Amino acid sequence: MTSAPPVIAVDAMGGDHAPDEIVSGAVRAHREHGLRVVLVGRGPEVAAHLAAANATREISVAHAEDSLAMHEGALASWRRPRSSVAVACKLIRQGEANALVSAGTTGGVVATSTVRLRAQPGVLRPALAVALPTGPVPTILLDAGANADAKPEMLVQFAHLGAAYAHTAYGVTEPRVGLLTIGSEPGKGNKLVRKAAELLASVTDSQPPLNFRGNIEGHDLLAGHVDVVVTDGFTGNVALKSVEGAVRFTIDEVRSALTSGMLAKTGALLQRRSLRGLHKRFDSESYGGAVLLGLNGTVVIAHGDSHAYGVERACLLARDLVTGRIVDQVRRRLGTTGRAPAWRHRRGAAEEG
Amino acid sequence: MTSAPPVIAVDAMGGDHAPDEIVSGAVRAHREHGLRVVLVGRGPEVAAHLAAANATREISVAHAEDSLAMHEGALASWRRPRSSVAVACKLIRQGEANALVSAGTTGGVVATSTVRLRAQPGVLRPALAVALPTGPVPTILLDAGANADAKPEMLVQFAHLGAAYAHTAYGVTEPRVGLLTIGSEPGKGNKLVRKAAELLASVTDSQPPLNFRGNIEGHDLLAGHVDVVVTDGFTGNVALKSVEGAVRFTIDEVRSALTSGMLAKTGALLQRRSLRGLHKRFDSESYGGAVLLGLNGTVVIAHGDSHAYGVERACLLARDLVTGRIVDQVRRRLGTTGRAPAWRHRRGAAEEG
Repeated sequence: MTSAPPVIAVDAMGGDHAPDEIVSGAVRAHREHGLRVVLVGRGPEVAAHLAAANATREISVAHAEDSLAMHEGALASWRRPRSSVAVACKLIRQGEANALVSAGTTGGVVATSTVRLRAQPGVLRPALAVALPTGPVPTILLDAGANADAKPEMLVQFAHLGAAYAHTAYGVTEPRVGLLTIGSEPGKGNKLVRKAAELLASVTDSQPPLNFRGNIEGHDLLAGHVDVVVTDGFTGNVALKSVEGAVRFTIDEVRSALTSGMLAKTGALLQRRSLRGLHKRFDSESYGGAVLLGLNGTVVIAHGDSHAYGVERACLLARDLVTGRIVDQVRRRLGTTGRAPAWRHRRGAAEEG
Repeated sequence: MTSAPPVIAVDAMGGDHAPDEIVSGAVRAHREHGLRVVLVGRGPEVAAHLAAANATREISVAHAEDSLAMHEGALASWRRPRSSVAVACKLIRQGEANALVSAGTTGGVVATSTVRLRAQPGVLRPALAVALPTGPVPTILLDAGANADAKPEMLVQFAHLGAAYAHTAYGVTEPRVGLLTIGSEPGKGNKLVRKAAELLASVTDSQPPLNFRGNIEGHDLLAGHVDVVVTDGFTGNVALKSVEGAVRFTIDEVRSALTSGMLAKTGALLQRRSLRGLHKRFDSESYGGAVLLGLNGTVVIAHGDSHAYGVERACLLARDLVTGRIVDQVRRRLGTTGRAPAWRHRRGAAEEG
């Protein structure tokens, strides 16, 4: 890219370890990777943390007097027009920043940025995408929770959003897309998925073409058979958390099985190191967080308990998405869609931006 | 129980390893646990396997000329009236057997037994229940796939079915029931779950009372916070398979991490043994399989790749459910429900039996 390096607006007030770990992560992203960062939050407080890190002259601060409380959901977007997330979105709208990184409550960040950045033209609903740690490249799962009740047409769009993400962030040339359902044969699933499968199979005119590979099941999530897994936000969130819980459970069980009795201390030490490595692979901090796709701006939501490392990774992911022009990629895939589904018009102009 | 020991009708033709492993499992269930078993399948073939096991005089055979093909779904119930599963259901209806055990295709067994045994009075839909290997007692997850599209009222019934199962099979006195959704606060989830949560919270007149504990999330599935997890069959199936896949993935990763490089061979051997133990805990064969609850008869569906051990465990589970009078327990909870939901009447009498 020949253009100026992107500016990442980092929500200094969001997350369990805000603002100290957030500020540290932003400083690391700047010092170790040359990212341009603006911290958004209560000015004096953020300035004090920056001063403590001797970074006052490296990183600018945008003042926001309010912030989203943890566990604050969709209403936050309306209740708190001067929250750090809202102010960060304003910076993006004004062209002063290219991306938002926040470790704040997912519901609040999704709602606020959806209202303030708005969906791109042609996009029915933004979707939350997460990277599952399959090898050699991650598998993108979406929607991971932005839309609890989805329509079949949305799932088709999620396929495009996910493909754009896999291409932009991980360089996958023709991302393979699978539809999450029960039973791998065509015609399996609930009403939503059966209809979505029909629509996905009939997409022939998209540019670039959609590489739809049919149904996949829950046990395929980590198998790496596809690059993008499409599902509604309810199922996706349950599946994601089921996987995370099962991995954690298994590692804990292995750890207690290995360290009880029989084994020599040296062996146990080595094992613990191996397990830590595995744990880290599944650690959401390593992956930079979830991406809210389909908005007029790039939004990365880091895990709520992110430390400096997680924030740094989230900033790098945001940088990659901006320099890879994810918003343009989505526009190319969905912006020129001639046939808007009929039900869209019924919803009125208010929601469409 | 003072009554005669129950008779288990075992589908000799269902499963990847039918009929040999099925026959072996039935023989083990009889010889090692004193169960009365009748094998249902193609007479001469089953008789030959019984003869090979020197068990001709211990176990009887009921002839069925047809069988369900693997991957045969709901239509099988109509297409194959003389399948081994259909004949086993007939034995139950005629009082010659008390339970069915099959390792055949889940869709086919569910459809066939639902049509032929019919739902108990007051039961809207039967549900598939699986035991998750939490400690000290398993957590029951249902519906694991019988109803891809569910209604809120069904989820309330699933809570009762699951509670009856946890009580009967695992002796849990007041089973704690959780509703699977996204976000633990009340009001979270999709439309189905939000309505179901309202209904579950308002159940006050059930006998025995329903111990509803509110929402749980995907990462709580293996945490043992509740005894019964209620969800629709689509979400339940995805969640179950996500958990199974993630556990398998993690064990494989741990295994390769532990056995590569650094570690001494003796250590590796011990670890492998620990991992095998863990693997076995998650092995569906150990748990006897899924139970189809709410029918006029007990149906246990063993995993498709069950060997003799899995069939034996499934027979024991069926025995426990019959002697614990699961059908009576369900009748007590749901049979006298005065207020049938309005939408039930609209469906007409054909489906209600």
